[in-house]
Amino acid sequence: MVKIDLNFVKGLTLEERAALVSGKDFWFTAKVPGVDRMMVSDGPSGLRKQDLSVSPTDINDSVDAVCFPSSALTASSFDDSLLFNLGSHLGVAANAEHLGVLLGPGVNIKRSPLAGRNFEYFSEDPLLAGRMGTAYVKGVQEKDVGVSVKHFAANNREDQRFTSSSNIDERALREIYLAQFERIVKEAQPATLMCSYNRLNGVLNSQNQRLLTEILRNEWGFEGLVMSDWGAVGDHVAAIKAGLDLEMPGKGQVSVDEIVTAVKEGRLQESTLNRSALRILRMVEKWGKDAATAEDYDKEEQHNFARQVADESIILLQNKNQQLPLKKSESVAIIGELAAKPRFEGGGSSHVNAHYLVTPLQAAPTNAQYAQGYSLDSEQEDEGLLNEALQLAKSSDKVIIFAGFPEEMETEGFDKTSISLPLNQNRLIEQVAQVNPNITVVLQNGSALEMPWAGKVGAIVETYLAGEAVGEATWDILTGKVNPSGKLSETFPLRLQDNPTYGTFGKDHDQEDYHEGIFVGYRYYDLHEMPVLFPFGHGLSYTSFEYHDLVVQEGTDEVNVSLQVTNTGEVAGKEVVQLYVANHVSRVEMPVKELCNFAKVDLQPGETKTVEMRLSRRAFSWYNINNEQWEADNGRYEIMLGSSSRDVRLTADFKLTIGVDPLGEVTEDTYIGEVWNSNNPKIQEALEKSGLYDALKPMMADDAWVAISANMPLRSLTAAGVDEERREAFLKELR
Amino acid sequence: MVKIDLNFVKGLTLEERAALVSGKDFWFTAKVPGVDRMMVSDGPSGLRKQDLSVSPTDINDSVDAVCFPSSALTASSFDDSLLFNLGSHLGVAANAEHLGVLLGPGVNIKRSPLAGRNFEYFSEDPLLAGRMGTAYVKGVQEKDVGVSVKHFAANNREDQRFTSSSNIDERALREIYLAQFERIVKEAQPATLMCSYNRLNGVLNSQNQRLLTEILRNEWGFEGLVMSDWGAVGDHVAAIKAGLDLEMPGKGQVSVDEIVTAVKEGRLQESTLNRSALRILRMVEKWGKDAATAEDYDKEEQHNFARQVADESIILLQNKNQQLPLKKSESVAIIGELAAKPRFEGGGSSHVNAHYLVTPLQAAPTNAQYAQGYSLDSEQEDEGLLNEALQLAKSSDKVIIFAGFPEEMETEGFDKTSISLPLNQNRLIEQVAQVNPNITVVLQNGSALEMPWAGKVGAIVETYLAGEAVGEATWDILTGKVNPSGKLSETFPLRLQDNPTYGTFGKDHDQEDYHEGIFVGYRYYDLHEMPVLFPFGHGLSYTSFEYHDLVVQEGTDEVNVSLQVTNTGEVAGKEVVQLYVANHVSRVEMPVKELCNFAKVDLQPGETKTVEMRLSRRAFSWYNINNEQWEADNGRYEIMLGSSSRDVRLTADFKLTIGVDPLGEVTEDTYIGEVWNSNNPKIQEALEKSGLYDALKPMMADDAWVAISANMPLRSLTAAGVDEERREAFLKELR
Repeated sequence: MVKIDLNFVKGLTLEERAALVSGKDFWFTAKVPGVDRMMVSDGPSGLRKQDLSVSPTDINDSVDAVCFPSSALTASSFDDSLLFNLGSHLGVAANAEHLGVLLGPGVNIKRSPLAGRNFEYFSEDPLLAGRMGTAYVKGVQEKDVGVSVKHFAANNREDQRFTSSSNIDERALREIYLAQFERIVKEAQPATLMCSYNRLNGVLNSQNQRLLTEILRNEWGFEGLVMSDWGAVGDHVAAIKAGLDLEMPGKGQVSVDEIVTAVKEGRLQESTLNRSALRILRMVEKWGKDAATAEDYDKEEQHNFARQVADESIILLQNKNQQLPLKKSESVAIIGELAAKPRFEGGGSSHVNAHYLVTPLQAAPTNAQYAQGYSLDSEQEDEGLLNEALQLAKSSDKVIIFAGFPEEMETEGFDKTSISLPLNQNRLIEQVAQVNPNITVVLQNGSALEMPWAGKVGAIVETYLAGEAVGEATWDILTGKVNPSGKLSETFPLRLQDNPTYGTFGKDHDQEDYHEGIFVGYRYYDLHEMPVLFPFGHGLSYTSFEYHDLVVQEGTDEVNVSLQVTNTGEVAGKEVVQLYVANHVSRVEMPVKELCNFAKVDLQPGETKTVEMRLSRRAFSWYNINNEQWEADNGRYEIMLGSSSRDVRLTADFKLTIGVDPLGEVTEDTYIGEVWNSNNPKIQEALEKSGLYDALKPMMADDAWVAISANMPLRSLTAAGVDEERREAFLKELR
Repeated sequence: MVKIDLNFVKGLTLEERAALVSGKDFWFTAKVPGVDRMMVSDGPSGLRKQDLSVSPTDINDSVDAVCFPSSALTASSFDDSLLFNLGSHLGVAANAEHLGVLLGPGVNIKRSPLAGRNFEYFSEDPLLAGRMGTAYVKGVQEKDVGVSVKHFAANNREDQRFTSSSNIDERALREIYLAQFERIVKEAQPATLMCSYNRLNGVLNSQNQRLLTEILRNEWGFEGLVMSDWGAVGDHVAAIKAGLDLEMPGKGQVSVDEIVTAVKEGRLQESTLNRSALRILRMVEKWGKDAATAEDYDKEEQHNFARQVADESIILLQNKNQQLPLKKSESVAIIGELAAKPRFEGGGSSHVNAHYLVTPLQAAPTNAQYAQGYSLDSEQEDEGLLNEALQLAKSSDKVIIFAGFPEEMETEGFDKTSISLPLNQNRLIEQVAQVNPNITVVLQNGSALEMPWAGKVGAIVETYLAGEAVGEATWDILTGKVNPSGKLSETFPLRLQDNPTYGTFGKDHDQEDYHEGIFVGYRYYDLHEMPVLFPFGHGLSYTSFEYHDLVVQEGTDEVNVSLQVTNTGEVAGKEVVQLYVANHVSRVEMPVKELCNFAKVDLQPGETKTVEMRLSRRAFSWYNINNEQWEADNGRYEIMLGSSSRDVRLTADFKLTIGVDPLGEVTEDTYIGEVWNSNNPKIQEALEKSGLYDALKPMMADDAWVAISANMPLRSLTAAGVDEERREAFLKELR
């Protein structure tokens, strides 16, 4: 066994080192004397390990593996430990397949419902995405498999993703688009980060020194390596200089030659090349396995876990007149081709060759009857299928309609143009609702959709892309075998047009301007006090919960929140208690409220538990672009505890004192009103001694001038007929 | 008479030159040997000439002058010739008062309905603001009085206006916030521009070299001088260097000393000082008069013109069941204190000591009865006043309710926090509507407001701040003596929350981020397909108009649009024909449509006129920040002719060919799909010769890859399994 250090690296030939910093091919790192190649594979929701005999463009041809729910669903669990266990299961599988690094999870923010890859991401909220991602990474890496967290960063659209520039103001970048990466890096130290295709404020991410080195390594202390998304490298030499370590896939001898030449011509320092080569070798040393072999592992247990993950994550969006759970005595009509041919996973790199798919139709109660209702191959209504469905619906107690987006509508590689269900599905639901009001719509989709029929149906169950146990999990929820406890990790707007990115998303071929800044998802809908279809954090249960006894206490470096939650219903259930903070003090743009913590609590009927949540200083902070610091301002906040972002049950006023004073020093630019109304005795003394008090007094006796003076700075006192000397004297007195 | 040239300037002492570049006091330029002082006065809607015996803070104490409607109303005329005549009347008055320069009009864009100074500005649309401003300036200057167009630039909020930075992307700055200034400068050459208080992207406007020199003078060819808004100068020396010529008001000897010292210390070049001194002397030479004297002028004629301006501008927003015009036989109840104490002008620098106010109550038909209804001094309902109003309403055929914002709610100097009418007024309208449905609400306000009662009343008449002839003009419209022809120059949203700036406007003490970019006003509401209360360009008539026979023809350097408009009703009337252009070709963010021309046409019953409008290349252009050019792209547009922005009557598809090709040259960053689908024979030939065609063919036979290739650039072909050499060969072949 060789010792991997800088000396070892220096002992390699230039050619060997140059070979290391590009992949040998699609899935392997290069081999050098003493260090074997290492294999990586796609796999946020299950392994997509491809045999080298398979063309990389045959993306659906991979090894047999259990397909877990996609991240859109798993995030809805709001359950860190579940995500940790999901990571562990993936780690076990990847370890058995002798993979070094698993590519995923994707933790990008769902900025627009049109983004083609939303199904693969966790949330519109960086705290939730960061918590889910951290737990997942820890779970995988504990099983001796490295993780590549992707796509770093601000890769929020698929169209022109190789060239388009995500133009984001620094505060939104830090608070919304980097915060989840920051948390994962600091708390879980993933083996690698995968840099994304796009540009960020004009600079290609794979060549972005500020992103890959200054922020990621110098600020956050990242210790792993950075690999490129597949084909994301423009100028390989520039990329290495900026902090990229591994180009994937390699371009063959071209990749080696360009590095060798650059070093020989002095355009790339050997020390820089050595740095990346060493990181790659260390990754292989730590995580590498004999890729030529593989072991077996318990796929049945993994399938059962996939079912459990879906059980804990599926969201009951609506349940009028206790439509659900189904009673055993009720006759059930199953309508919709998605019951037989479910969408249970996303397309592109996250596609898994599922081990054992159980469709909803296969898992259905034996007495349930089925009608196809519509065809997935067409948007057109089919009279025959429709009539058959209507007949069946008429003769059944309850109707379960399976609806969702066909696979060709949402996948990696391009963005959507609509969030409507296909016409024939919407029409089917409307028409069935006319013959039987006892309808439950079960949704299979990767991302938020419009539901023009929501008011006409009884229950709505969101299963997203639920993995290969989709059938079993769906019926677990429908029958009440499992009490639903999932909460939406994204807002469902009433109309796509309500989204802040509508009309601009993907419209510029080369640029994507993040107009809304920090106001993404619920932060935007709250800001404009807009009605939504289903809010962020929303999800119903078959039982009910009462929140009470809220206590908020400031510590030396944190704020502690405690409350009690009681299950006031008849069945056991889990509740996601969401803690939002509203800032009423900072003199900058602020969301109405922000998710700052959450906890999932399991309660038997009648049971009460105390829920304790900590808020660090960071929870009260905003990113101050002037001093490049996170700043928590002293003053008034509200602490809100809710069952969703729009169902706040308890609120406490709270005054923070462990932060900083939001008002700065008095200068020429300070406004007269701020000085006049200040409680600071030093300011009052200076006003009197300088004579400024007497000069201002007549004006301040006039209501109109009081209003105007609020917006007149000291330097402009002349325009109010007060001479310069008084102001100078006042400022001098103060200093 | 001395000859004003650089030699004359050089002949002055340093002290004299230093004295020139600051105002002598509040209203006068400094006097130097051979050149007298010159007086300036506020006055976009009438003169606010103040005697020097008056304290400048007594803003309402000025000479007797006719008060014309404020710009919020005059812009609603959509009538260039009316604005020219308004300018002429102001010029006559200012000339008689021996003023050198009239301060105004303000041409800033109405970005938020909360902005305190909206009443003083023309529009949310830069074309309309620019056209109105140009006509106005020409009218004044033709009467030998200079104009100072204000507030240059991007001064769109009052709160913290002396320090806050308007942060605007370059394209929005050019297309929305500077375009109207650009037009006025190029077409009317105003004597001066007044630079505003605020910062622009961090730089104080009074010290903004790029704004005051590079854009204003070098790009646009401005020949006049730049003065500061009152108190807008921070560092006077830096301001002069940046291109400011005249600080207003002067700070006394301090102002002189700081310039003299700066020159002596070498911090300010004499040539720079001389440049500004010369501009000031030339201004005085051209526009100066003997400020110690004044002449009389015909104020009665001016009053009548003020009435005419209001007549041509008042907007009939709603007229259900032909509620209006009133018939002579009908008994009329007048309700609302604003009938007796109207708001007819704005507060702050635009306040005029009105020559002869005629209130709506004074101008009312003799048989009309009056009830106060509410008190302007309070928001509270007054049971006594309410009951009296209800009694009167019950016993009358028709009810005219006067409602509006009290003066303390909107003025220069601070922003509003709401666009609701006071509670007592809204309640009054709701309650009167329950006893008599035949209600007309007449509005007096400076800016858009919410009307929760709009569905419950018959007619709504928007008079804004209509000037001293408010009473006469209001009844001209109500009785049908004048057929209304005004059109809204701003959108009235259903709720303040619908505005793009809601929740961020004025929230940051030091910064104002223009998140919405170019999507201001109707451009935003259209983009999000939002319902509005009354759209931009909306206004009804007592007659009806039919649009027909649209012809669109491209010339060598312009596009000519012609259509016919017929008065299909019973009375004579004027129609504002609005021409909007929708761009379907450019690969950047684009409004759904933009106002690109308009014409007001006067038609007798049954009469038809041909309306011809020209669209310059600029009408099709967007500002390309990459090459800093206005770019008109060849391709598909729609030409829309409407009676409002949401009442488009005629549409023509149109293909522009006098612009440039929106697709650039093929590079490594060009997407495979764009190459594969190109009709360009050179590209097809290169594909074949290089062998790239054969390499791509198998992929492009697969539907999924066709979609993915649309978003894969040539440089990333490796990730699709195509080798580098083919791409290189293809690009080489192309060149």
